[in-house]
Amino acid sequence: MLKIGLLGCGRIGQVHARSIGQIEGAMVTAVSDAFEEPARDLASRTNAKAMTSDDLIASADVDAVVIGTPTDTHFDLIHLAARAGKAIFCEKPVDMSADRIRDCIKVVEETGVPFMTGFNRRFDPNFANIHARIERGEIGNVEIVTILSRDPSPPPVSYIKTSGGIFRDMMIHDLDMACFLLGEEPISVYAVGSALVDPEIGKAGDVDTAAVTLTTGSGKICQISNSRRATYGYDQRIEVHGASGMLRAENMLESTVELATATGFRRAPAQHFFLERYEAAYLAEMKHFVGMIAAGGTLTPSIIDGLRAQVLADAAALSLETGVKIEINANSGS
Amino acid sequence: MLKIGLLGCGRIGQVHARSIGQIEGAMVTAVSDAFEEPARDLASRTNAKAMTSDDLIASADVDAVVIGTPTDTHFDLIHLAARAGKAIFCEKPVDMSADRIRDCIKVVEETGVPFMTGFNRRFDPNFANIHARIERGEIGNVEIVTILSRDPSPPPVSYIKTSGGIFRDMMIHDLDMACFLLGEEPISVYAVGSALVDPEIGKAGDVDTAAVTLTTGSGKICQISNSRRATYGYDQRIEVHGASGMLRAENMLESTVELATATGFRRAPAQHFFLERYEAAYLAEMKHFVGMIAAGGTLTPSIIDGLRAQVLADAAALSLETGVKIEINANSGS
Amino acid sequence: MLKIGLLGCGRIGQVHARSIGQIEGAMVTAVSDAFEEPARDLASRTNAKAMTSDDLIASADVDAVVIGTPTDTHFDLIHLAARAGKAIFCEKPVDMSADRIRDCIKVVEETGVPFMTGFNRRFDPNFANIHARIERGEIGNVEIVTILSRDPSPPPVSYIKTSGGIFRDMMIHDLDMACFLLGEEPISVYAVGSALVDPEIGKAGDVDTAAVTLTTGSGKICQISNSRRATYGYDQRIEVHGASGMLRAENMLESTVELATATGFRRAPAQHFFLERYEAAYLAEMKHFVGMIAAGGTLTPSIIDGLRAQVLADAAALSLETGVKIEINANSGS
Amino acid sequence: MLKIGLLGCGRIGQVHARSIGQIEGAMVTAVSDAFEEPARDLASRTNAKAMTSDDLIASADVDAVVIGTPTDTHFDLIHLAARAGKAIFCEKPVDMSADRIRDCIKVVEETGVPFMTGFNRRFDPNFANIHARIERGEIGNVEIVTILSRDPSPPPVSYIKTSGGIFRDMMIHDLDMACFLLGEEPISVYAVGSALVDPEIGKAGDVDTAAVTLTTGSGKICQISNSRRATYGYDQRIEVHGASGMLRAENMLESTVELATATGFRRAPAQHFFLERYEAAYLAEMKHFVGMIAAGGTLTPSIIDGLRAQVLADAAALSLETGVKIEINANSGS
Repeated sequence: MLKIGLLGCGRIGQVHARSIGQIEGAMVTAVSDAFEEPARDLASRTNAKAMTSDDLIASADVDAVVIGTPTDTHFDLIHLAARAGKAIFCEKPVDMSADRIRDCIKVVEETGVPFMTGFNRRFDPNFANIHARIERGEIGNVEIVTILSRDPSPPPVSYIKTSGGIFRDMMIHDLDMACFLLGEEPISVYAVGSALVDPEIGKAGDVDTAAVTLTTGSGKICQISNSRRATYGYDQRIEVHGASGMLRAENMLESTVELATATGFRRAPAQHFFLERYEAAYLAEMKHFVGMIAAGGTLTPSIIDGLRAQVLADAAALSLETGVKIEINANSGS
Repeated sequence: MLKIGLLGCGRIGQVHARSIGQIEGAMVTAVSDAFEEPARDLASRTNAKAMTSDDLIASADVDAVVIGTPTDTHFDLIHLAARAGKAIFCEKPVDMSADRIRDCIKVVEETGVPFMTGFNRRFDPNFANIHARIERGEIGNVEIVTILSRDPSPPPVSYIKTSGGIFRDMMIHDLDMACFLLGEEPISVYAVGSALVDPEIGKAGDVDTAAVTLTTGSGKICQISNSRRATYGYDQRIEVHGASGMLRAENMLESTVELATATGFRRAPAQHFFLERYEAAYLAEMKHFVGMIAAGGTLTPSIIDGLRAQVLADAAALSLETGVKIEINANSGS
Repeated sequence: MLKIGLLGCGRIGQVHARSIGQIEGAMVTAVSDAFEEPARDLASRTNAKAMTSDDLIASADVDAVVIGTPTDTHFDLIHLAARAGKAIFCEKPVDMSADRIRDCIKVVEETGVPFMTGFNRRFDPNFANIHARIERGEIGNVEIVTILSRDPSPPPVSYIKTSGGIFRDMMIHDLDMACFLLGEEPISVYAVGSALVDPEIGKAGDVDTAAVTLTTGSGKICQISNSRRATYGYDQRIEVHGASGMLRAENMLESTVELATATGFRRAPAQHFFLERYEAAYLAEMKHFVGMIAAGGTLTPSIIDGLRAQVLADAAALSLETGVKIEINANSGS
Repeated sequence: MLKIGLLGCGRIGQVHARSIGQIEGAMVTAVSDAFEEPARDLASRTNAKAMTSDDLIASADVDAVVIGTPTDTHFDLIHLAARAGKAIFCEKPVDMSADRIRDCIKVVEETGVPFMTGFNRRFDPNFANIHARIERGEIGNVEIVTILSRDPSPPPVSYIKTSGGIFRDMMIHDLDMACFLLGEEPISVYAVGSALVDPEIGKAGDVDTAAVTLTTGSGKICQISNSRRATYGYDQRIEVHGASGMLRAENMLESTVELATATGFRRAPAQHFFLERYEAAYLAEMKHFVGMIAAGGTLTPSIIDGLRAQVLADAAALSLETGVKIEINANSGS
C-alpha cells in the first residue's frame, strides 16, 4: 500500500485524491494546503489527516507526495521531499525557471527518489494509443507531427499576467506531446503569435493565438497551433504522419448522436471542460505513478521531460519576441 | 461500335444518351419518342436520327435498343425488339404485371437476344463495392441485410395514383438490392405501412412510410424501410452483417466540409437529386451493357431479376393489404 | 440519506454497489446473497452488513432494495419488499411470466411503494439524448425507429436454455427502447429468426439472429434486428426518423484514433463489454432512483414498462413460432 | 460562343479540352503542341485544327488561349497572346521568376486582355464552399488557417531537378490557397524542410517534407505542411479557425463504404490521382473562365495572384536556405 501525502488541496489536488481513491494499492494518508478549509474538507473526504506541508513531508505515514500547489512553491517542496526520501509526483510546470528545474534535477539525482512530472496528456487513452502504435511501427518513421490545441475560452486576464504566457502555460503540454511523439529532441523552435481573441490579453503582454514549428536533428517536423478560444468545445487533436501511414486522434464529443435536418448532419460539440476531457488521463497517470513505484520501474515523464518542455516554451517565447528561430542546445535538456 | 436506338427521350432517355456519349465503342444512332420535340432535340444533340419506334427497331443502323418509355409500352417494345434480334436494355419495372413479364421472358428466351433490366443501383460504386467484397468473403456468410431508403420529398399524388404504389414504384429498387446482396431467393415477405407523410397519399390508396421483412431459405434476414420524405436529402444507406464482419455504405453528402460552432459539428446534407446521386451508377450500368455485348458476356441484372423484384413488390403489397406474411414460391421468379 | 439493501451480490449487484458509492445521498447498508462469500466480500467493500434477504427486507436500516438476484426469485422478493414498504429497484426482466408481473403490479399498487424497472439503456447518455430531443420536437412526429443491436459474442448454450430465448433475454432491451422512443403503444408484433451464428443454439430451441417489426396505433413503425455475434464489438445503434429530421446514435468506439494506410482509414472497434459500454447508464439510472425517491417524483421505467416489454417479447416469440403477426391488446400492458 | 485555342496538348491540355467540351458557350477551335502527334490526336477528338502556336495566336478563329505548355514557354506565349488581344488562361506557375511575371503583368495591363491563373484548387467544390462561408461570416474573423497537403507518391527525381523545388512546384498551390482563405496579404514566411521520403531528392538539392508558417499584417497565422508521399492517397485537407467557429474540408475517399471487423472500422483510402480528385475543380475553373469573359466580369485568380504565390514560394525557398524568416514587401505582390 503506497501512502500518499497530497500537497495542495485545490482543484487539481482533488482530482488526484479522487484518482487515488480508485487505485488499489494506494491511499491518501495526509493532506496539506495553505488554507485551512480545503485541507480539512479533503481530509474528511479521504479519511486522511490534515497537517502542515513540513509535517506531511516528514511524516512516517507518507511514502510519496503529490505536489499540486502553486508553481512558485514547487522548488522548495521538491527539495524537502527529495531529502526526506519521498517519491514525488509534481504537477507541471516543475518551475517557471529552467535553471531552477536544473537545480531540482540535482537534488532528485542526488537523493535518487522516484520523480514524475504531471504531463497528464501522455496518459490520455487516445494519445497514448498513438504513441504505442508508433512504437509498434504501425506508421514507420515519424516525419510530421501536427498538434491543434484550442481552449474553449480564455482565462481571466489577471491569470494571464502571472501564468508565464501562452507558451509556458498552455502550449507546454503540446511541446511535451511533440517530444513524446517525435521520439527525438527538437533542435530548433520558431514561434509566431497574435492577440486576436481578446485585445486585453495583448495589452497584458501575451498572445492568445500562437503557432510553433519544431525540427529535430534527423529532420522531423512538428507544427503546433494554439488558440485561447474555440466556440465548439475543447479542441484537442493530434496527427502523426509517418513513412508508411498516418495516425490521428479526433476530439471527444459530448455524445455520439447525430441530427440530420435540411441544414445537414450535426454532431455534438467537443467536450468543453478539461477535467472531463482528461478524466481518464488523470486516473491513468496516477495509476502509472503508483504502479511503477510498486514495481520499482522507471517513472515517465521524468523531471528531464519537465525541463525539456520548459526549455522549449522559453525558446518559443524568445522566438516570438525576437522574430528569429531559436536553436536548442542538445544538452540543454539535461 | 454498338449502334444504339433510344426508345423514349424523356429524362431517363437523356441520362442514357449522355452516358452513351462517354462510352467508347457505343453511339446513339436513332431516337424515338411519342412527342416530336423531345425526339428532335435529343437527335440533334446526339447526331442521331429521330424516327418512329417501329422504324427504329427495324433499322439496320440499330444493334441495341434502350427502352425508357412509359412502363405500359415496355411489353410491346420488348416483343418487337426481341423479334428484330436487337439487344435490349429496359428500364425498371419491366412491366407492372408479373405474368406479362413472364411473357416477355419467353420471347427473350426464344429469340436469344441479350437483355438487361435497368436496376441502376447495382452499379452504384458504393453498393457494387459492398457486393464485390461480400463475394470476396470479406464478411463471411451474409446474415442480416438492412436497407434504409428515403426520398427527399414525395412525388405528386397524381403520380402516386398510377405508379403501382410504394412497393412497385420505390421499394422495388431495394427489393432488387436485397436479392443482389442476400445472394439467395427470398421465400417470405411481410410488409407494414402507413400514410404519415401526406394524408392525400393515404386517400389515394397508397402508403408513404413502409417496412418490409424478407427471409431466405437458409434463414438470412433482410429489413427494408422506406419513406417518401427525408428533410436531409436523398437517404440511401445499406448495411450487410455477416459472420465475420459488417459492410455499410453511408450517404453521399453534398460536400466534405464540416462547420464547428457552439451547436456542434455540422456536415452537409445528403445529395438531394437522384440523377446526381446515381450519376456514376447510370454511367456504369450502360458501360456494362455495351461492354458485355461486345465481349459476348452475360448481362446482369437479367430479365429474371426484373421478374423477381416485381414478384416481391406484389407480395409486399399483398402482405400490407392482408396483414399476413406472403410465401414466395421458389419457382415464381423464373 | 437513502439506505439501500442490495439483494444479489453477483456481477450486476456489484455494478449497482459501485454506482451507489458515487452518489451523494445514498449508501449501501445491507447486502444479501444465496452464497456466503460474495455477500461477505461486497459487505466489506461497502461497509455494509451481510444478512439474509428476509432480514434485509425487514431491516429498519433499509429504505430501499435493489434486486439483482436470479429472475425466478424476483416475484417473492418484490412481494416481500412491497409489503415491508420498501422502495424497489428491480433488474429486468421483472419476471418471465407476464401474469406473474401483473401480480407484482397489484402488490406494488396496493402498497404504493416506489418501483423502478432496470432498463438501464434508457439512461445511456446517447439514447437519453435522442429521447430528450424527440420530446423537444427536434425531428417532429416520430415515423420510423430502427434499432440495430448485436452482442459481441453468444452466451454459453447452457445459458440460452434457461434464458427464455433471444426475445426475452436480449431483445427485451430493444423492445423497451422502441416503446420509449415511439412514444406510443405497439399494437402488432411480427418476428423472424434463425440460428446462423451457432447451430447449437438452434438445437437448444432458440435463434441467434432475429428481426422484429412493430407498429403502433397511429401507424408508426419500428424495425429491430439482433444478432448474438458481432466481430467488431458490442454494436448498439439507434435511429429515429421523424417528420422534420432524423436522430441517430452511433457506437461508442474504443478510441478516437484513426490509422490511415494503403488499405484506408481505420478506426477502433466498438467497445466490447456491456459493463463498459453502459457504465454511464448504470450510474445514471441509480441516480434517477435515488434522486426521484428523495424528491418524491415518479420513477421511470415503471413496472408497467417492465410488463409491456415482457408482453412484446412473448408476442415476438409467439410470432416466430407461428409465422403470423401477433396483435397486442392495448390493455395488455396495464 | 467563345472560341478557344489550346496551347499544349499534354495531360493538362487534354483535361481542359474535356472540360471545354462540357461547357455550353465554348468550343476548342485550334490546338498546338511542340510535338505533332498529341496535337493531331487532340485536334481530331475536339474537331479543332492543329496548327503552330504562332498561327493559333494569330487566328481569327481564336478568342481566347489556354496555355498548358511547359512553364518556360509561358512568358513568350503570354506576350504574344496579349498583344494579339486574346483572353488568356495560363496554367500555374505563370513563370519561375517573379520578375518575369511582373513583366507579364505589364503586358497584360497594357493590352487590357482578360487573364486568369490556373490555380484550380480555388474551384474545388469543398474549398470553394469554405471560402464562400467565410465570406458569409459563418466563422467570423479568420484567425488560423491549417493546410495539410500530401502527394500520394513523389515524382521522379529527374522531374524534381527542373521543377523549381517543392515550394514552387507543390506548395505553391497551398500558398495560393492560404492567400485565398486568409483574405489578407502574408507579410512573413518561415520554412523548414527535410528529405525524409527519398534521399535522392535531398541529393538533387530539394526537400520532400516541408512546413511553412505565414503571418499577415493583422496577425492571422497560416501553417502549411507538405509531404511528397502519403500511403493512404492524395491527402488534401484544409481547416480555417475563426472567431465564432471552424470550417474544415476532409479528404475525398474512394467510396463511402465502411468495413467493420475485429480490427475496427475501415473506410476506403483517399482518392489517389490528382485528375480524379480535382476533376470537378478543373471543370469549374474553366466554366468561370468562359462565363466571366461572356459576362465581362473579373477573372480570378488574377495574374497578381499568380505573382503573389510565386513570391511566397521564392520566400519559402530562401527561408529554408537561410534559416530565417523572410519579410514580404506588401507591394511585392503587385
